[in-house]
Amino acid sequence: MLKRFYSNTLPLILDADSRHAAKTLRCKEGDKIEVIDGQGKLFEAIIAHIGRNEIQLNDIKLIQEVTNVQLLSIAIAPTKNPSRLEWFVEKATELGIKNIYPIQTKRTEKSSVKEERLNNIIISAIKQSKQLYLPTLFPLQSFEEVIRQTQSISQKFIAYCADNPVRLQNIFQNDKEVIVFIGPEGDFTTDEILLAQQNGFVPISLGNSILRTETAGVYVTGLIRMLLG
Amino acid sequence: MLKRFYSNTLPLILDADSRHAAKTLRCKEGDKIEVIDGQGKLFEAIIAHIGRNEIQLNDIKLIQEVTNVQLLSIAIAPTKNPSRLEWFVEKATELGIKNIYPIQTKRTEKSSVKEERLNNIIISAIKQSKQLYLPTLFPLQSFEEVIRQTQSISQKFIAYCADNPVRLQNIFQNDKEVIVFIGPEGDFTTDEILLAQQNGFVPISLGNSILRTETAGVYVTGLIRMLLG
Repeated sequence: MLKRFYSNTLPLILDADSRHAAKTLRCKEGDKIEVIDGQGKLFEAIIAHIGRNEIQLNDIKLIQEVTNVQLLSIAIAPTKNPSRLEWFVEKATELGIKNIYPIQTKRTEKSSVKEERLNNIIISAIKQSKQLYLPTLFPLQSFEEVIRQTQSISQKFIAYCADNPVRLQNIFQNDKEVIVFIGPEGDFTTDEILLAQQNGFVPISLGNSILRTETAGVYVTGLIRMLLG
Repeated sequence: MLKRFYSNTLPLILDADSRHAAKTLRCKEGDKIEVIDGQGKLFEAIIAHIGRNEIQLNDIKLIQEVTNVQLLSIAIAPTKNPSRLEWFVEKATELGIKNIYPIQTKRTEKSSVKEERLNNIIISAIKQSKQLYLPTLFPLQSFEEVIRQTQSISQKFIAYCADNPVRLQNIFQNDKEVIVFIGPEGDFTTDEILLAQQNGFVPISLGNSILRTETAGVYVTGLIRMLLG
């Protein structure tokens, strides 16, 4: 089985992935490899030259091309413990997601996310799960800003810990894009929930037992994977 | 909100949880706390005495009693990286599970699991997700032994990476106990799959993209949570 790489700079593979190649995978010039562009294309190529920070490819052949089937975007607050957000990002990528929006809420405990680290986790996860589309990780933005940016998505949901009979699986429409906002540790404030509802977001429940933020995110991603069959 | 503890040795709280109480939570004698027994009962009690390795309670009052609603057992091979199994155990407990069977398969990369550590993760997770039943973590056993032990469960499934149209959500029956075997890194062998089928296990697929062992386990747990509403 050929080793698989990611590059959005073909015929070059740059940075982390090229160092990874040269060192960990012990690739050498003349090796045939697989490359994904993160936009639905899978190539085979030959390593022409291995530099310190880039790999030069030639004989690049398109092997497979798919269109993105992912409909799900999730807006989620960074967790106090960054490894929990990293777990969410890895698992959501494996299960299938289109966009991840880290959000600042009133009760978010973090003011920054390690975007490069998270993007490397996403790249490893699509290679490992053999997907051809790279989910988009947006920069950390305010709750209000992401509400605004996702206006046009036809199915908009906000999940929080109130008594709430509505289950996502009972109202999700299979063929339409969907965004789900996941509450932070300490949950959304009443003002945030109100603002979301004023912008067409439907409140949903994720079930009876209380879920951690990252668990709720992975649960919703799995649920949509299941509903899309 | 009262601090919540676990004890199956009432009126004493022993070991990890008592040290945790005394040190981290700075509990003192006379404090009122919540205690769960892991068997469906929630109590309130007063701390009578804090020893080095145990807390003595009195005025123990039964506040709530529920019967176990969990139907799901999962048999899963320990992952090469133990933190991945720990993550599965935490998330499966949050989402709701009855039994966890660590299994030795031909391609399992670990020959042991840290049972005490995993049980502490389970206890933290039920306290955090406000559940009253403690999932049972079985010792690491052979694939064949767990196949034998789970004979009587009415819905038996084995998930692996073959092309397989059958989806769990299409054949799961809501009111019956269910066990799902999750393949190790490298998947089950043909012999293992055959043995499972000879014992009434139905092969299922978890979807198109490849899932890591622990992701498959959490996905199945979430799926059953969803199907049970």
